[in-house]
Amino acid sequence: MIKQLLIGLLSGAAVLTAGILIGHYGITHSSGSAPSWINDVAKDVDESLIEKFLSEVDNIQIQENLRELTKVPHMATTAGDEKTVQFMLKRWQDSETGLDQAWREEYMVYLSFPDPKKPNKVTVVNASETVLYAAREKEKSYTSDQDDPEVVQPYAAYSPAGHAKGKLVYANQGKPSDYQELNQTIDLRGTIAITRYGGAGRAAKAINAAVYGVLGVLVYTDPLDINDGLMSDLNETYPHSWYLPPSGVERGSFNSHFGDTLTPYLAAKEETYRIPVENVTGFPPIPIQPIGFEDAYKLICELAGEAAPASWQGAFNCTYSFGGPGFRNTSEFSDSDVKLDVFNYEEVKNSSNVMGVIRGSVEPDRYVIYGNHRDSWVHGAIDPSSGTSVMLELTRVLGQMVKQGKWRPRRSIIFGSWGAEEFGLIGSAEYTEQYFTKLSERTVAYINVDIAVFANATLRASGMPSVQNLLFTAAKQVDAPGLDSTSVYDNWIRYFNRTSPARGVIPRVGYLSGAGSDYAAFVHYLGITSMDLSYTYDRSKTNARIYPAYHTAYDTFDYASKFIDPGFVSHQAIARTAGNVLIRLADSLVLPLNCSDYAESLEDYLQSAVTLYEGQLKARNISMEPLKRAVSSFRSAASHLDQVIHSSDLANETPLKVRRINDQLMLLDRAFLDPLAFPDKYAYRHVIWASSSAGRPTFPGLADAYAHAESSAQSSDWDKVHYHLSVLSQAIEGAAHTLVDVI
Amino acid sequence: MIKQLLIGLLSGAAVLTAGILIGHYGITHSSGSAPSWINDVAKDVDESLIEKFLSEVDNIQIQENLRELTKVPHMATTAGDEKTVQFMLKRWQDSETGLDQAWREEYMVYLSFPDPKKPNKVTVVNASETVLYAAREKEKSYTSDQDDPEVVQPYAAYSPAGHAKGKLVYANQGKPSDYQELNQTIDLRGTIAITRYGGAGRAAKAINAAVYGVLGVLVYTDPLDINDGLMSDLNETYPHSWYLPPSGVERGSFNSHFGDTLTPYLAAKEETYRIPVENVTGFPPIPIQPIGFEDAYKLICELAGEAAPASWQGAFNCTYSFGGPGFRNTSEFSDSDVKLDVFNYEEVKNSSNVMGVIRGSVEPDRYVIYGNHRDSWVHGAIDPSSGTSVMLELTRVLGQMVKQGKWRPRRSIIFGSWGAEEFGLIGSAEYTEQYFTKLSERTVAYINVDIAVFANATLRASGMPSVQNLLFTAAKQVDAPGLDSTSVYDNWIRYFNRTSPARGVIPRVGYLSGAGSDYAAFVHYLGITSMDLSYTYDRSKTNARIYPAYHTAYDTFDYASKFIDPGFVSHQAIARTAGNVLIRLADSLVLPLNCSDYAESLEDYLQSAVTLYEGQLKARNISMEPLKRAVSSFRSAASHLDQVIHSSDLANETPLKVRRINDQLMLLDRAFLDPLAFPDKYAYRHVIWASSSAGRPTFPGLADAYAHAESSAQSSDWDKVHYHLSVLSQAIEGAAHTLVDVI
Repeated sequence: MIKQLLIGLLSGAAVLTAGILIGHYGITHSSGSAPSWINDVAKDVDESLIEKFLSEVDNIQIQENLRELTKVPHMATTAGDEKTVQFMLKRWQDSETGLDQAWREEYMVYLSFPDPKKPNKVTVVNASETVLYAAREKEKSYTSDQDDPEVVQPYAAYSPAGHAKGKLVYANQGKPSDYQELNQTIDLRGTIAITRYGGAGRAAKAINAAVYGVLGVLVYTDPLDINDGLMSDLNETYPHSWYLPPSGVERGSFNSHFGDTLTPYLAAKEETYRIPVENVTGFPPIPIQPIGFEDAYKLICELAGEAAPASWQGAFNCTYSFGGPGFRNTSEFSDSDVKLDVFNYEEVKNSSNVMGVIRGSVEPDRYVIYGNHRDSWVHGAIDPSSGTSVMLELTRVLGQMVKQGKWRPRRSIIFGSWGAEEFGLIGSAEYTEQYFTKLSERTVAYINVDIAVFANATLRASGMPSVQNLLFTAAKQVDAPGLDSTSVYDNWIRYFNRTSPARGVIPRVGYLSGAGSDYAAFVHYLGITSMDLSYTYDRSKTNARIYPAYHTAYDTFDYASKFIDPGFVSHQAIARTAGNVLIRLADSLVLPLNCSDYAESLEDYLQSAVTLYEGQLKARNISMEPLKRAVSSFRSAASHLDQVIHSSDLANETPLKVRRINDQLMLLDRAFLDPLAFPDKYAYRHVIWASSSAGRPTFPGLADAYAHAESSAQSSDWDKVHYHLSVLSQAIEGAAHTLVDVI
Repeated sequence: MIKQLLIGLLSGAAVLTAGILIGHYGITHSSGSAPSWINDVAKDVDESLIEKFLSEVDNIQIQENLRELTKVPHMATTAGDEKTVQFMLKRWQDSETGLDQAWREEYMVYLSFPDPKKPNKVTVVNASETVLYAAREKEKSYTSDQDDPEVVQPYAAYSPAGHAKGKLVYANQGKPSDYQELNQTIDLRGTIAITRYGGAGRAAKAINAAVYGVLGVLVYTDPLDINDGLMSDLNETYPHSWYLPPSGVERGSFNSHFGDTLTPYLAAKEETYRIPVENVTGFPPIPIQPIGFEDAYKLICELAGEAAPASWQGAFNCTYSFGGPGFRNTSEFSDSDVKLDVFNYEEVKNSSNVMGVIRGSVEPDRYVIYGNHRDSWVHGAIDPSSGTSVMLELTRVLGQMVKQGKWRPRRSIIFGSWGAEEFGLIGSAEYTEQYFTKLSERTVAYINVDIAVFANATLRASGMPSVQNLLFTAAKQVDAPGLDSTSVYDNWIRYFNRTSPARGVIPRVGYLSGAGSDYAAFVHYLGITSMDLSYTYDRSKTNARIYPAYHTAYDTFDYASKFIDPGFVSHQAIARTAGNVLIRLADSLVLPLNCSDYAESLEDYLQSAVTLYEGQLKARNISMEPLKRAVSSFRSAASHLDQVIHSSDLANETPLKVRRINDQLMLLDRAFLDPLAFPDKYAYRHVIWASSSAGRPTFPGLADAYAHAESSAQSSDWDKVHYHLSVLSQAIEGAAHTLVDVI
């Protein structure tokens, strides 16, 4: 019986086992057993990984990155620049903290330099050519940094070489209206104009002047605009504070366009077709040279003529006058001319981007790009090395996780260390030209962190409206530097805020309508959803138009570590915020881009346009209804897509559904591109965010066409307004079509 | 014992069952059990479904479709056109054989018509304005079709209205060289030129003439070019054969560009901006009118002057002379003028596309588009209704499978029945403008079947090189009409063939470099991989430049069923071939597009370019090396992608890997778009297939720039050659970048 029982049990067990085996292997599952990749494709962002990342971002590492990067001046294509190329490559190819791959990409680009053997000169000369006064040729030394022989003489890149001599006039900011006003009392032909930075683009100050027969232009930074009025290097300016010393001079590119000038839309390779230099537009037509306010003071305070209007007055302790033209009779410079000798030369030189990648695991064909330029004017501790130091800290932390096998992003991450940005965003623009199709098809977003820290008060962010919420999410998880238990988000909202109809009071995210940094080609030429992040000022504490050492020989490690961000905690906050954004873009199952926030911005622009233009347009029989309908279609489509996202259990649906939605989100900005809408503006194709001169908070093409038509005698100029309305309506409707159900 | 055994068996069965249940449900699989969608995403094209499709395509259904479509003339925007709209909608909305959805899309487009109350006239008048001869105003009736009051008078659409009178000259085909030659012996100012169809575009015949002061142009179809010389309607021409009766007149659009003329790049909606008509280029500047060869014979054989060259002679039994200008002294028309009275008017009219879709199951956001126009000049049995009849048979068979739940394609299929093609591919162009972004992002391919059957000898196909192999696969599975056990492929290769370095002797697939049918906007504006299919002539049997009833009142059901395709078996073969291609594009796991075949075409073009241009370019210091490197990069990248496809077990890998490869294949042609490369050619953006006037089998922009530079005195024209080399090199390198591993 026992035996029988045993046999029974054993045979029962055998039968059970057989049954289990049959059940497990023998019965075809509805769809077979699950393949190994199934968990990977459904994986979402890992919050614990983000926490780990945040905790590992180290301020001291950033400080040491900056120290290394700023040892010598590293202007584009110089030996110092090459040193930074090697440094980036070394770091990104490091076997323990580097990326999967890093390499350089070279372009032959058109640059402009002063002649080290024949320095540019600004002098006051009398009738017998005796030099009565000579402006400084280099900035005064306060640390050994300024003594480096590689400090480039202050100059206006792309100013033509040439010699100009004439009576001096003061032309405020060199805007068209400034010269127009000046021209009402003074015959500007044959004069030299001195202008202050601000109000108009650098090149514009010379372009606007040439119209009136001005022969040469000087530009300086008024202490009112940069130093909150302070001027003395005995106790007020650097090295006593962050303010600009009297001899400090802002260098810069005086090219109106971005990208390599000779190869528009083509990557500047050796054998690429180059347009003849004489066909180039956008360079100053007359010599222009920047000087320090120490010299500007000497010149302006001696000027004869009517007192300039109150809005033209700066911080000097004298009345700014128009100029006789020329100096007062009582001046030591009486009857003298100002003479401008510019020896700049242009040269096609080899500039490098340094590129690095972390390969995506699930969707390697989706790219999140993070970039900053590498080249500076002098040591560039803040511009751009603050951003580069932050980028290097991000790649160290992320690279280490990859090398240790702890992480691989869902999507690929591309890091770009751009060359020759200071000459006109050249490295990034050439990169987008060379890889136009690939980048257009696959890039999820571009993150730009150039000057990471202007000042240590608050986050500032600009970007397409769809990234707003992602920025909020990231900023809420980062501690604000120097504040107890306050997040970057909570601090931010105190400084910049607005009321959103949908979200209530939120931080104000700016728009990327200009070409201020390397996001320009990504935004305007490729229509890639982009953002630009930095830490910045408390505007209640300073009116400086930018940090005072900008583009001068004082933008050094010493300056940055003493006056911009002691302890590098704001750098750390930016690194954490930008890195958090980067990881979320790379790892989220559904891309963290919000199209309803885009709809809100379009509605905002529409409302402004209707308020500003509809009356006049109706009178001209031009209807704004198609634009209204388009914005309304966009809103409906965006709400619908949001609803699809929120009501779907995407982790359990086919990965092709998630991909489809992500493609809709990724490609949204592409729908706003029109390569023919702005024929006179190189690479501006994004009809919502293109640059505009009309100064209206609405659609740029429409605003500019309207402003032009309003001031024009030709009724056919209203056709252009109608044209831009149609372009916009079609683009916005087209974008809406991409957000509705795919068929 | 039996009871025990029974219990034992039963309990054993229960234990086994329990085991099976445990095995089936109780053991966690390595990655959980597979979700239900997993088989769907890995599914490939089903060959048995293709067999079923092929067997169900019915020639009699096609015949009946054609009968219905050709009951009345259906010129764009007429009542007859609206009837066809309703017919398409009824068929596509049918609950048993229709599509998932069908609807109309309307555009307000700029059309040109003759005035029914004031017919256009061509007369011979003497000095006292007495009419000595009047050309026919309508074609002669042979069936009741020609008596339909809706048969539009023969006219040249977009010819300006106007009255021209002058001595007649014979200008051959109206090419620039024809007028140039004529002008050497005759002062063309004030004359009327008679030209024959062929050799130059329709509008060009008038545009080229106006340069020499010609006042008006006549155009006719010479029996040599269309009838293999036959002329008599007593026994030689229709209704006795397929040849054109003496009174037959080819109508056509005399617009040089395609798309709605007043709204370039914008969908022509009611409130869309329209360019002023006076800014339009591409219309004939002087009146032009087509006539039958019956009338042309009367005029040409009476001409005075030198005998025209041999190549100008047609089939008339007289010597074609230049004209005195004017008629021979011995002629009844001696000293008389030819007078041309054109009363055409232009009007913005509402034209419809009819759209239908079958929603994709797995990748609804991928579109295969199949289209043909719906509008004809008169009854349009061949052009376009042969194609429409074929399309309707495809949608019947496919629609039925969908409605019966037997099939749903992996990708979405969009059917387009375009409006107003005859006026310049308007419906399809407006569609691509309106949905530019969505279509660019998602369209896998466009299949065009316009005139499905020109003649019943062989398949003819044109398309991007990447579709070649797909066409071969499909054509091998279809029986050639009228031949025993011969496939469409085997028959095809007898008529058109070439030797491919990689594939040996294969059928020759043409290129889509012009704007001959609705593929133009897809190819040139959107860069969508496209193809155009038809059944066509045995060129050893006829020299007709096209089927003789083309664009005349004789293109009727009677004509088609008697002389083009009795039994509709060639229609059936096209329906089967095109449908097979369509199903494969819609259902294949990996898109059946081959990038190595594209490389072969690029290599071919490169070789021609090097042979034709390199010597001269070297002498001008313009290097072709970047272009050579680009083509070589493309070849390597294509080989690599091919290898990845063939070495992967894609059905068992993540669906995102298949999608990635398919995106590479789908977007390949997009990489060749450059919206700025051809600033003077509306919507031509594809730098490989753009139209060219140089007549060289190589890259069009390069060929045209070279031809221009060669004939120009300005050395700066060689800059354009260099520019096009750079544009091409960058585009081809850019395409190669998209084919290599994605990161």
